[in-house]
Amino acid sequence: MGKYLRLAVCVLIALGIAAFAVSDGGAQKGELQNGVWRAEYGKPAQFDLLDAVQFTPDKAGLDRLPKAELPIKIDDVAFQLQDGKVYLRFPLERDEQIYGLGLNFKKVNQRGTIRTLRMDIYHGRDDGRTHAPIPFFISSRGYGVFINSARKIDVYCGTTQLKDSPNASPERDRATDPKWEARPYSDCLEILVPQSGVEVYYFAGKDVADVVRRYNLYFGGGAMPARWGLGFWHRVPLKFTDKDALREADELIAKGFPFSVLGLEPGWQSNSYPCTYDWDKERFPEPAGLIGELRKRGIEANLWMNGYVSKKSSIYDKLKDFYADHTVWCGAVPDYSMPQVREIFIDAFKKNHLDIGVGGFKLDENDGNDFWLYPDTTIFPSGISGEQFRQTHAVFMARMINDLYERNNRRTFSLVRGTNAGTNAYPFVLYSDYGNHKDILTAAVNSSFIGTLWTPEACNARNADEWSKRIQSVAWSPLAMLNAWASKKKPWSFPEAEKDVRETFQLRARMVPYLYNAFYKYHKEGVPPLRAMVLEESFSGLLKNGGAKLSDEYKKLAEDVSDQWMLGDDILVAPMLGGQSSRKVLLPAGKWFDFYTGKYAGSAEVVSVDFAANGNRIPVYVRDGAIIPMSAAPDLKCRKLVLRHYGNLPGKLNLYDDDGVTFDYKKGNFAILPAEVDVSPDGKKTGKVGPELKNLFNYDEAEFEFMTK
Amino acid sequence: MGKYLRLAVCVLIALGIAAFAVSDGGAQKGELQNGVWRAEYGKPAQFDLLDAVQFTPDKAGLDRLPKAELPIKIDDVAFQLQDGKVYLRFPLERDEQIYGLGLNFKKVNQRGTIRTLRMDIYHGRDDGRTHAPIPFFISSRGYGVFINSARKIDVYCGTTQLKDSPNASPERDRATDPKWEARPYSDCLEILVPQSGVEVYYFAGKDVADVVRRYNLYFGGGAMPARWGLGFWHRVPLKFTDKDALREADELIAKGFPFSVLGLEPGWQSNSYPCTYDWDKERFPEPAGLIGELRKRGIEANLWMNGYVSKKSSIYDKLKDFYADHTVWCGAVPDYSMPQVREIFIDAFKKNHLDIGVGGFKLDENDGNDFWLYPDTTIFPSGISGEQFRQTHAVFMARMINDLYERNNRRTFSLVRGTNAGTNAYPFVLYSDYGNHKDILTAAVNSSFIGTLWTPEACNARNADEWSKRIQSVAWSPLAMLNAWASKKKPWSFPEAEKDVRETFQLRARMVPYLYNAFYKYHKEGVPPLRAMVLEESFSGLLKNGGAKLSDEYKKLAEDVSDQWMLGDDILVAPMLGGQSSRKVLLPAGKWFDFYTGKYAGSAEVVSVDFAANGNRIPVYVRDGAIIPMSAAPDLKCRKLVLRHYGNLPGKLNLYDDDGVTFDYKKGNFAILPAEVDVSPDGKKTGKVGPELKNLFNYDEAEFEFMTK
Repeated sequence: MGKYLRLAVCVLIALGIAAFAVSDGGAQKGELQNGVWRAEYGKPAQFDLLDAVQFTPDKAGLDRLPKAELPIKIDDVAFQLQDGKVYLRFPLERDEQIYGLGLNFKKVNQRGTIRTLRMDIYHGRDDGRTHAPIPFFISSRGYGVFINSARKIDVYCGTTQLKDSPNASPERDRATDPKWEARPYSDCLEILVPQSGVEVYYFAGKDVADVVRRYNLYFGGGAMPARWGLGFWHRVPLKFTDKDALREADELIAKGFPFSVLGLEPGWQSNSYPCTYDWDKERFPEPAGLIGELRKRGIEANLWMNGYVSKKSSIYDKLKDFYADHTVWCGAVPDYSMPQVREIFIDAFKKNHLDIGVGGFKLDENDGNDFWLYPDTTIFPSGISGEQFRQTHAVFMARMINDLYERNNRRTFSLVRGTNAGTNAYPFVLYSDYGNHKDILTAAVNSSFIGTLWTPEACNARNADEWSKRIQSVAWSPLAMLNAWASKKKPWSFPEAEKDVRETFQLRARMVPYLYNAFYKYHKEGVPPLRAMVLEESFSGLLKNGGAKLSDEYKKLAEDVSDQWMLGDDILVAPMLGGQSSRKVLLPAGKWFDFYTGKYAGSAEVVSVDFAANGNRIPVYVRDGAIIPMSAAPDLKCRKLVLRHYGNLPGKLNLYDDDGVTFDYKKGNFAILPAEVDVSPDGKKTGKVGPELKNLFNYDEAEFEFMTK
Repeated sequence: MGKYLRLAVCVLIALGIAAFAVSDGGAQKGELQNGVWRAEYGKPAQFDLLDAVQFTPDKAGLDRLPKAELPIKIDDVAFQLQDGKVYLRFPLERDEQIYGLGLNFKKVNQRGTIRTLRMDIYHGRDDGRTHAPIPFFISSRGYGVFINSARKIDVYCGTTQLKDSPNASPERDRATDPKWEARPYSDCLEILVPQSGVEVYYFAGKDVADVVRRYNLYFGGGAMPARWGLGFWHRVPLKFTDKDALREADELIAKGFPFSVLGLEPGWQSNSYPCTYDWDKERFPEPAGLIGELRKRGIEANLWMNGYVSKKSSIYDKLKDFYADHTVWCGAVPDYSMPQVREIFIDAFKKNHLDIGVGGFKLDENDGNDFWLYPDTTIFPSGISGEQFRQTHAVFMARMINDLYERNNRRTFSLVRGTNAGTNAYPFVLYSDYGNHKDILTAAVNSSFIGTLWTPEACNARNADEWSKRIQSVAWSPLAMLNAWASKKKPWSFPEAEKDVRETFQLRARMVPYLYNAFYKYHKEGVPPLRAMVLEESFSGLLKNGGAKLSDEYKKLAEDVSDQWMLGDDILVAPMLGGQSSRKVLLPAGKWFDFYTGKYAGSAEVVSVDFAANGNRIPVYVRDGAIIPMSAAPDLKCRKLVLRHYGNLPGKLNLYDDDGVTFDYKKGNFAILPAEVDVSPDGKKTGKVGPELKNLFNYDEAEFEFMTK
């Protein structure tokens, strides 16, 4: 009280304005890699996001991208230190759109939003509290900006108005002027980073897709999952024993629901919440035996865990010098930022889990919900603040498990509930317990902008219709998981949907060659396996160039395409929701064909699809001329390929293949199978497969199927 | 990247733990006033909450309170500077409850909650974003703590667990132990203030009510509203002209709905959103004439405004050196923290509004919703940061209007959508556009802990039942407002409810003597006119002392009484919701009587009330022996008092009275009317009114009405 002096206000005003006018941009600007720049504003913090993740830029991959320049000058980004924080302001043009800004669930286009990026479970609002609060945005002008800070960052994305902006709207009278707007036009994106300096990375690209690829390649390219990770996943109840688990696996197999990952929930441990990470001796007396039995059936085990350590754990004492001062569920919180901590886990996990064949983990509750996490007041032995630790906890845990597998030349495909920037090379997929189906589909679309993978897992449904549609949605995503143990649902729980669900499981198993190829492209070229429509050239190019020819309905729907996506190069997926009998789909430029029948579906138009008339299947389309490599049987071990050709254009395919489980592909131990379809002037189609077929790891036979008659 | 050094981890651990153990408490501790202490932790900020509000502690009032000691030692509050922030930790005992922590809408008892206190419109969650983010909490042990910071403060109220706490729960196994808890026991309240030092005020009290009184008296005691502010309020549509307004006033009067304040919405101004604050010459060619006509009818005008200035305003240029660098609705944002700015407004408002008789203002949109406010990046000429300005903007505006009236020896009763600490002496009532009826009732209850007033205004209803109940709820609150112009509802809009609504309006007008007395007690003794049940001695004392005799149902319901309150000394109000046909009410110790009939209702028990059987009236009860002063007619000018006596105990009343509109009462220009009811051994009741009746300002006749036969 009374400490605030109001003297010399005019002087302060002058200083304030002067300070604001000063914007010397970031120091130390230089092109780090082809199309990637780094700028430093003020004095960056001791600990930032990229201190949590280990990555090596894929220089070769970046160099293969065409040269690109930033459409803005880095010097034109306004910067100042303000109230002890870094203030940055980016210009926005009238038609510019912004993507990214964390994993969002409601909209794809982020212009007009306000958020504080904060690691948390998603709770129904795009306010920045999310499983992946990645401070990265991409402009439709062709550039991306990554703010390397582990603080809670405020982002005003085209919502604010500067008084002296030349683009300021004229004021209007709310009472009488029908043109009055509740949200006047904004020409800038403003960011406040609550630390006294920050590193910023700028990524150029000819379009949004190109920026995404550059971001992903800068952080080492996308992850190559273990091949078995691409079949269906199934998780079993809390208190299952080894016998229960095996019985359930056999039941799925017997009923014709092929799957390749079985998830064990907390009860595999002798104590959970907090965790021992030790097998429960009563329920799982011989874990190696169980895992061996599962693997005989082509099924890998995935083990649930969270990061809070029980006093009963065999590693509790080893970790005792590294605990934070707060507990979670009465469990100690090791400082996962410390290499010593991760090594203790890695040692124990190698012996107890990896060596007996465990395929991966589900890293739960590293993301928040405030009540189920340490507070920001927590003291960690490394000195990282509670706020920063929360932003990166999940990254450190994924890094630990990644190290465990990588060092043993074994690949995994695992789950994690949170992540942050630069982790695209880690083979982890995000999930949540958030049930809104529409929202988790939008999250899948948005995951593709920020170097993350997301599974819209099927946990429950009110009826057969919803069950079938949820399972179909997730089947056409990077990780097809049934996580319905808590709701006690089995694949066949709704008899009316049983046939459709079985077909979906079987189809997913058959899609593994195609999906694996898509992941290789993620790894090698930075192209996400699941892509927002705006990342598809035949869609974004159409809007840019052919806008005039498109129907008004198309243009309207194209403003925010949150419910359809591309899966791999050539497949367009349009999920449906329970209760939805029909939907509209935006088809990009070129001709598109029905995945199931091969029939022509349309071109650069809005098509309306009836679920029942579509054979109770969600709409899935294939690009003209595409060759879709599938397995002949719904079995990941099936060695016969079916190469489906769609449409009437000639097609080409390069099918990637390797051993599926080791990192030997990094040493060149992989194969590429070329395949081609020629179309003669009279429309006759002929398929040709390269002689490399004999060198493949997983296939030794291939046949063409011409889907479009 | 790479800036974070992982050397010497052991040293860091040692330092971390050492730092945590150091807790020398706040410096400069000393008793400021009877039962009020101030402690300083670190180096407080240049600008804090109490720099926004002007107040003078009511030393005489504080000295009248019994001496009280803090139940904790200030030295036992853990303090450290951590991550550049002030960390404070308060101990919690097993049965301790916490109240306050801003204006909350869901629960009364705040133990077990987490929030970041931030000025904002309420948006459905008690996460700290609220119209009154006041960093003040009260413990059931009998003390209160106020954190004098205008930053966003994190509060973990009994949700966190320290690893080495002697009260830590034993760990359990979620899979097998039915006693496993999702939220383990917490023995502390932790606070993080993001600045390098802070002032903290400690208030002692024998119970929660005593702490509240002390807090209110420290900040000058409660506001004395203009007496006319206690009748019903009615607001009229956006584009109304002076003639429309007068016609609507006459229609209400003619139909028997007495009211004393007419609110004009934005259209009274020549431009709004942004505002001119100048009368629109077409719709209001002669404002003085309109106001004079209204006042002839006993109605005062209240003018809507927000703080964003139109270029067309007569004061735009005068303010030009004091604008922030961002606009809101294209309007300039004056720095209301600067005295120069407030003086420009005060000058203009005196001439244009006060001098022609305007009774008060509705200060809108000073609270947030992010999209309808300047961002935290805003630069204000005073140097106050955007974050801090937002926390206090509403306080500065209320202070400005308060100064306007006070200097002219005129009282007002006005509306403001936000407030912060220490403003209880300002005659402003909070409101919102948030419609959930249950929640706004809980807000009314919670407003009583933090020195604020809140109106659960009636804006709309789906049907007659809800309409009647909403209007009855607000009628038994500090400010009875119909704010239904946007939903186009009139008091008589639901014919089935018209009679009940009319009776409610009339009853409110008759209650003004009682309500005015309650406000005097707020002013003089710090007792809020509307009180949470825990602030009522006959309730909190019952729980403390008579717990064993209470039914289990009573004890269960008593844990969080969010839907009934005390209004003034002796009336207990139990609002009901649309669709609710009956409700349960907790009656405190002593006997309680039905307000409408005088019949005995119960004592220290849960009673169930049927709305229809209760005459379509919400339950309202009166304490045994209470004398309720009412007006004989539903007219604020009626000079005859009816003194209703309830129950069978003798009663006493001191009725406060003054001119109702000036501050002359501060110079002793007021009267107190004593009244008494004696009960003879055979049960005969006799009423006696002091001879002071002839000296009263508003009354010259009084009669007793013995309600209980």
